[in-house]
Amino acid sequence: MSNKIRWGVLGGGGDSLIGIVHRVAATMFDAYQLVGGSFNPNIEESKAFATQIGISTDRIYKDIEAFITGELALPEAERIQVVSILTPNFLHFPMAKRLLETGFHVICEKPMTMTYEEALILQTIHQKNETIFGLTHTYTGYPMVRQMKEMITNGEIGEIQKVDAQYYQGWINPIIHDKEQRNATWRLMPEKSGISCCMGDIGVHAYQMLEFVTGQKIKSILADLNHLYDDNQMDIDGTVLLRLGEHQKGVLRASQIATGEENNFTVAIYGKKAGLKWEQENPNYLTFLEDGKPIRVLKPGHSYNSSLSLDGTKLPPGHPEGIFDAMGNIYKGVAKAIRGEDFHPAEFPGMEDGIRGMQFIEKAVESHKEGNVWISLL
Amino acid sequence: MSNKIRWGVLGGGGDSLIGIVHRVAATMFDAYQLVGGSFNPNIEESKAFATQIGISTDRIYKDIEAFITGELALPEAERIQVVSILTPNFLHFPMAKRLLETGFHVICEKPMTMTYEEALILQTIHQKNETIFGLTHTYTGYPMVRQMKEMITNGEIGEIQKVDAQYYQGWINPIIHDKEQRNATWRLMPEKSGISCCMGDIGVHAYQMLEFVTGQKIKSILADLNHLYDDNQMDIDGTVLLRLGEHQKGVLRASQIATGEENNFTVAIYGKKAGLKWEQENPNYLTFLEDGKPIRVLKPGHSYNSSLSLDGTKLPPGHPEGIFDAMGNIYKGVAKAIRGEDFHPAEFPGMEDGIRGMQFIEKAVESHKEGNVWISLL
Amino acid sequence: MSNKIRWGVLGGGGDSLIGIVHRVAATMFDAYQLVGGSFNPNIEESKAFATQIGISTDRIYKDIEAFITGELALPEAERIQVVSILTPNFLHFPMAKRLLETGFHVICEKPMTMTYEEALILQTIHQKNETIFGLTHTYTGYPMVRQMKEMITNGEIGEIQKVDAQYYQGWINPIIHDKEQRNATWRLMPEKSGISCCMGDIGVHAYQMLEFVTGQKIKSILADLNHLYDDNQMDIDGTVLLRLGEHQKGVLRASQIATGEENNFTVAIYGKKAGLKWEQENPNYLTFLEDGKPIRVLKPGHSYNSSLSLDGTKLPPGHPEGIFDAMGNIYKGVAKAIRGEDFHPAEFPGMEDGIRGMQFIEKAVESHKEGNVWISLL
Amino acid sequence: MSNKIRWGVLGGGGDSLIGIVHRVAATMFDAYQLVGGSFNPNIEESKAFATQIGISTDRIYKDIEAFITGELALPEAERIQVVSILTPNFLHFPMAKRLLETGFHVICEKPMTMTYEEALILQTIHQKNETIFGLTHTYTGYPMVRQMKEMITNGEIGEIQKVDAQYYQGWINPIIHDKEQRNATWRLMPEKSGISCCMGDIGVHAYQMLEFVTGQKIKSILADLNHLYDDNQMDIDGTVLLRLGEHQKGVLRASQIATGEENNFTVAIYGKKAGLKWEQENPNYLTFLEDGKPIRVLKPGHSYNSSLSLDGTKLPPGHPEGIFDAMGNIYKGVAKAIRGEDFHPAEFPGMEDGIRGMQFIEKAVESHKEGNVWISLL
Repeated sequence: MSNKIRWGVLGGGGDSLIGIVHRVAATMFDAYQLVGGSFNPNIEESKAFATQIGISTDRIYKDIEAFITGELALPEAERIQVVSILTPNFLHFPMAKRLLETGFHVICEKPMTMTYEEALILQTIHQKNETIFGLTHTYTGYPMVRQMKEMITNGEIGEIQKVDAQYYQGWINPIIHDKEQRNATWRLMPEKSGISCCMGDIGVHAYQMLEFVTGQKIKSILADLNHLYDDNQMDIDGTVLLRLGEHQKGVLRASQIATGEENNFTVAIYGKKAGLKWEQENPNYLTFLEDGKPIRVLKPGHSYNSSLSLDGTKLPPGHPEGIFDAMGNIYKGVAKAIRGEDFHPAEFPGMEDGIRGMQFIEKAVESHKEGNVWISLL
Repeated sequence: MSNKIRWGVLGGGGDSLIGIVHRVAATMFDAYQLVGGSFNPNIEESKAFATQIGISTDRIYKDIEAFITGELALPEAERIQVVSILTPNFLHFPMAKRLLETGFHVICEKPMTMTYEEALILQTIHQKNETIFGLTHTYTGYPMVRQMKEMITNGEIGEIQKVDAQYYQGWINPIIHDKEQRNATWRLMPEKSGISCCMGDIGVHAYQMLEFVTGQKIKSILADLNHLYDDNQMDIDGTVLLRLGEHQKGVLRASQIATGEENNFTVAIYGKKAGLKWEQENPNYLTFLEDGKPIRVLKPGHSYNSSLSLDGTKLPPGHPEGIFDAMGNIYKGVAKAIRGEDFHPAEFPGMEDGIRGMQFIEKAVESHKEGNVWISLL
Repeated sequence: MSNKIRWGVLGGGGDSLIGIVHRVAATMFDAYQLVGGSFNPNIEESKAFATQIGISTDRIYKDIEAFITGELALPEAERIQVVSILTPNFLHFPMAKRLLETGFHVICEKPMTMTYEEALILQTIHQKNETIFGLTHTYTGYPMVRQMKEMITNGEIGEIQKVDAQYYQGWINPIIHDKEQRNATWRLMPEKSGISCCMGDIGVHAYQMLEFVTGQKIKSILADLNHLYDDNQMDIDGTVLLRLGEHQKGVLRASQIATGEENNFTVAIYGKKAGLKWEQENPNYLTFLEDGKPIRVLKPGHSYNSSLSLDGTKLPPGHPEGIFDAMGNIYKGVAKAIRGEDFHPAEFPGMEDGIRGMQFIEKAVESHKEGNVWISLL
Repeated sequence: MSNKIRWGVLGGGGDSLIGIVHRVAATMFDAYQLVGGSFNPNIEESKAFATQIGISTDRIYKDIEAFITGELALPEAERIQVVSILTPNFLHFPMAKRLLETGFHVICEKPMTMTYEEALILQTIHQKNETIFGLTHTYTGYPMVRQMKEMITNGEIGEIQKVDAQYYQGWINPIIHDKEQRNATWRLMPEKSGISCCMGDIGVHAYQMLEFVTGQKIKSILADLNHLYDDNQMDIDGTVLLRLGEHQKGVLRASQIATGEENNFTVAIYGKKAGLKWEQENPNYLTFLEDGKPIRVLKPGHSYNSSLSLDGTKLPPGHPEGIFDAMGNIYKGVAKAIRGEDFHPAEFPGMEDGIRGMQFIEKAVESHKEGNVWISLL
């Protein structure tokens, strides 16, 4: 039997993007084995999806209660150890509650709950058990975010005197100006997404990031939120003034109507000795600004980084981590070819590329050795 | 039974980085199921590795011949369909040769062979069979490289008049100046890495990329290579002049002694109407330069991209594809916690983050509603 | 007689940086002729400076009253037409007041006055006369800022829904943490720099820029300022929430303790159709973000720019405007050489560079014509 | 009498861009006084231009011979000391020759001559006299280029092992594809621009820059040039292989058909210890790549720069040198207003900006002091 962690998943079936992200993430360090779950409210679809992704249908359950009953009936050595909750937001709380009560470890998508009150209930249950609870504020997993945190912890910027976070998107813009659309989008419905749209969806990422990298708590806030049409008053933009200490201030800005912005999430922390800045759209660069010295730009994988940062780096310097994706695309193309599906010849390099490559190498060496002369390729 | 493709792997065991990259890539589109292979020259280590990554040891073979014999003995519906070759370079040719001869599809790491002659032999065998052969020139898998190719194909830059590729690294620099090291590094030994170091390792990527994006063949070359010490004359730097047509010229530059460079691979193609530029270290940006118009920067996932590009994009605009890696790191941290291993509290966000996040959202809305007043956080 | 505008200057003598900037600016379009003024409180130093910069000492005056009396005594066709006020801040108001009262055009450094009340007095005087009053909020002179304004005016981003300005510097940081220094710096003394340090010095630039590019007035503000030590409570950091209309909000952030920042002044305006962004440290780039289209980057000098922008561009595309400065440095080096002063041989290229350049050109053509062969240079 | 250098100019009259650049540059350090010259082949136009730019017509000459005769007739203390040659290329040599022969210092636009032979003649004359000869390879005047040179001189990158320069423009592209235009453009006529177009115009800048920053001579070259149409065979693109030493190689690339490129001039030097990179379009950034350390980015004006670099910096850190230009534009607008010409209200900030600015500052402080409350602006 594998020594991998036995892993279950609730939600995330079909084409769910978040389902793919979690499955790929679970593969990366060879630590998890997906053995069951409930991907879909419909048990048949759930089983079909299990088959599609290559796992047995034996431990596919119709709902969370069936899941808990079924797994608890198994010997502990076979039982699923940790469950990822990838369902719609309003199900995070009841599912996490039941799983923690019955002794499962949990990895929960953000937001943890619909309300602060629910969050406190979950905390109480969690404190009684010795289970692990992970919340996927994914951005803290970037090597350079970890490095930023460690440098601040180690005093490299000195006492903090200013914090600044921005999370600007424009995706709601085309929706908000159409009355029908804005009242039919779940993110803009309080019953489905909670009390807040912009702060609940992205402002909270910026908030968590500021507390993560500084290691300090934000003590008080003053918010100014915005909506554009009175028939839907969910916030889609806002600025929050922040106080971390008497003279430690900051500001958090979030918007979903910053037209044309994609996922422009930035964080800057300025201390008595230096500043540190990071941008999510270019996550491999950490800028270190020290008074009177050249700007320094740190990148992942170098030995000057902290062990926390290096532990999260899988590739040598200069390879954007996205290389996994490039390779994934090539595998996808080969899969299409094997299955006899239509594919574009550009989806994967093949024999011809190999031939030409070897010819190039040999002819390049030959041209050089013969005194830098022109040589034709076949 | 899963409808995934039955996949085998030769090499890539233990901590092999390329092994991880291929396994993660194979996961991304739920298309492959790893069922067997030979990860290691030592069968016991190979089996231990199989267990570690959660697959059965039944179809772990001691070598390629055992692999072929064993798999051919199985019914076709169970037999491994495609094999990835991740072994040292000198084994690529003999392994690919045997697999193609016996009817397997192959995904082969670059370089395909040690010599051009071997490459031609492989081609002959491949042409006789109806097998799929994929060569992992990974960079062609990037969505914006695919978009670049499609735009050129569609005439958006007009007839090509200049091509330019650079692949600058500095990694050999600390090795080359130490006599002992430079004569003990496999990449600098002809018997292990072939006739060329710099051109064979990275120049060929630049060459393949130029032919890939332009859709044209390079017709002749003039090379000037360089080495720094006469006791090791493998090229570690070089420039190659290129001719694609009578008045279509270009240049390819590659170096492993461009001190301080990480993986600075760039490609620029200039046509009669416009130019296109791409950089591997910032792979989500494609720059389009059209005479007399603002510079345009294309990014993945937008509907203005070609279907070839969109097919290789898994995330909405603005998420660097590396988000998989950030999530992977969080899963890694949770795994350590579950297994009772030491872990840094920053490795994954948890309950406290959820509590504080929900509090933040509610208090932000409250501060706003009460007229932009300060509210303390607990 | 020249048809240039007769120009006088108050202040800006000696090594004053702002003096140099104004004199160079006045040269650029051949429109001004410096004929007199009062550069220094000490008349002898003032005259010596006039001689140094090559103008007659005839119309150098001991103070503003002497200036006004002397100039008014001259025939109108000889009289100074416009006066630049480059003195310390507290003199701006009294000098501008006297000049406007006596019929001179004025170019005044920022801030216009020490208080809002003084500003209103000046306005009253100005409205009575038909004089020109220019205030050097210099950043509005950049071609791409002008282009941004024009695009907004022309409706290219649609109705404005969010404005955002940042002006982050770190220069006060090394001063503020030293008690002696922070209480000896004029910028931190209310009697010399007015009621505010950070908002008065740089926040007001950001404010003026927002109103400049949007063409709208900011209707109300909510400010949160910061100081670090209670023995000097001048603001050195702050965030100001902004309202332009009922649902048009924004935020202005300014800091002089953003450690390591130089002059990081940015402005972003998001409208119903698109967004526009500009950064002062890279002033030749204007980013245009339109929903669902590639990012567009506009640069100075292209015909796609507005006439307002093109009127402020002096160089062809691709030459950063700083080329004037590079050329200025070369002239400086030649001047040292002519005067027999010490100079570094790198201060200006000379004969040897010309020789080698001509040789290079001829040998490059020769190498090419002879079939791409190596040719030695002498 | 001023202690400025008495300066004459040949050429550069009317709207000549190069004329403006030289006049502004000469102003920057208050070292030159323009006293005469010959701006135009037509003496009347030359005098009108003198009046326009505010200098006396007394020492405006009909041609270079009249200039020399006239100036030599004056007492040495009044005589023009240095002459800038801004005429068409073919006049550089005869003018420089006559001026050097007769004892004037010379500042000459690039290219120095039409041929290498002429260059050698000039050198011979120059060596006989004790005159100063400056050649405006302007890019060497940038503070960060000077810093690059100094760091290499000081051994900060160690022995050089690779040099790389690129100068890519696209401006000839729209000309070259039109038969009439390509045969009517002076840059493409050998009789007007010499033996080479691309190498002569921009390749030589890259060449001079490489020798400037490295302090080494390029010993041999191998060139491959390109043209697109056989009816005009002037090179408009080319690559030149370079050798500085036995194992010190490099490459220089220049193009005027790199469609869409503006003035993309870059230089990178890699040594045994580190690399240095600079780009002309972003001239305030110098990138320093040292093995195993964070990337460092140096900017002008900081005390970590060499004195050679600091001597060429006129502004505090963070102000792009182009600030002169922004200020120049504001002066231009004020000049239009004073002269009663049409102007756009956005051409210069004025009274209203001053009023609103003072109001903003006072209200920001008030909002803060009253406990962060909203305050309306008038």
